[in-house]
Amino acid sequence: LIQNTFGDVLRKYRKLHGFSQEKLALEANVDRTYLSELERGIRKPTINTVFALSYALGLKPSEVIREVEEEYEKIVDNLGEKV
Amino acid sequence: LIQNTFGDVLRKYRKLHGFSQEKLALEANVDRTYLSELERGIRKPTINTVFALSYALGLKPSEVIREVEEEYEKIVDNLGEKV
Repeated sequence: LIQNTFGDVLRKYRKLHGFSQEKLALEANVDRTYLSELERGIRKPTINTVFALSYALGLKPSEVIREVEEEYEKIVDNLGEKV
Repeated sequence: LIQNTFGDVLRKYRKLHGFSQEKLALEANVDRTYLSELERGIRKPTINTVFALSYALGLKPSEVIREVEEEYEKIVDNLGEKV
């Protein structure tokens, strides 16, 4: 769930900044296939990957995490579950 | 570097909230040895672990990450390196 939300936020900002997966992967020094898996929520990023991708997009890691957190809490609230 | 900063921030908040490693590990549903390794900067947490530990301490994940980011950027600035 958290990794799916992260993947959605990452894809949104990558497109907003006009980056291809190839370009972002190169600038953040991550594998292109790994980046694609992150965007699809298949892999869980480490904190280091979150920092590298955020900075490559010109964003603060805490801004990216805040957005993931807001989306995640909305989904959990809608499910009526406890965080 | 990032994982060391995360480990320091995590230990600080754990102690501030009066949690033992055992209690935090139990509440966040992570292994006690793994938590100890995170605090020592030996392991890199996934985003899911960051969320679980933050919520267990009653904190927002973005607050924890903002503090890691501030400490990390201070260290990088002092090294005179580019982020």
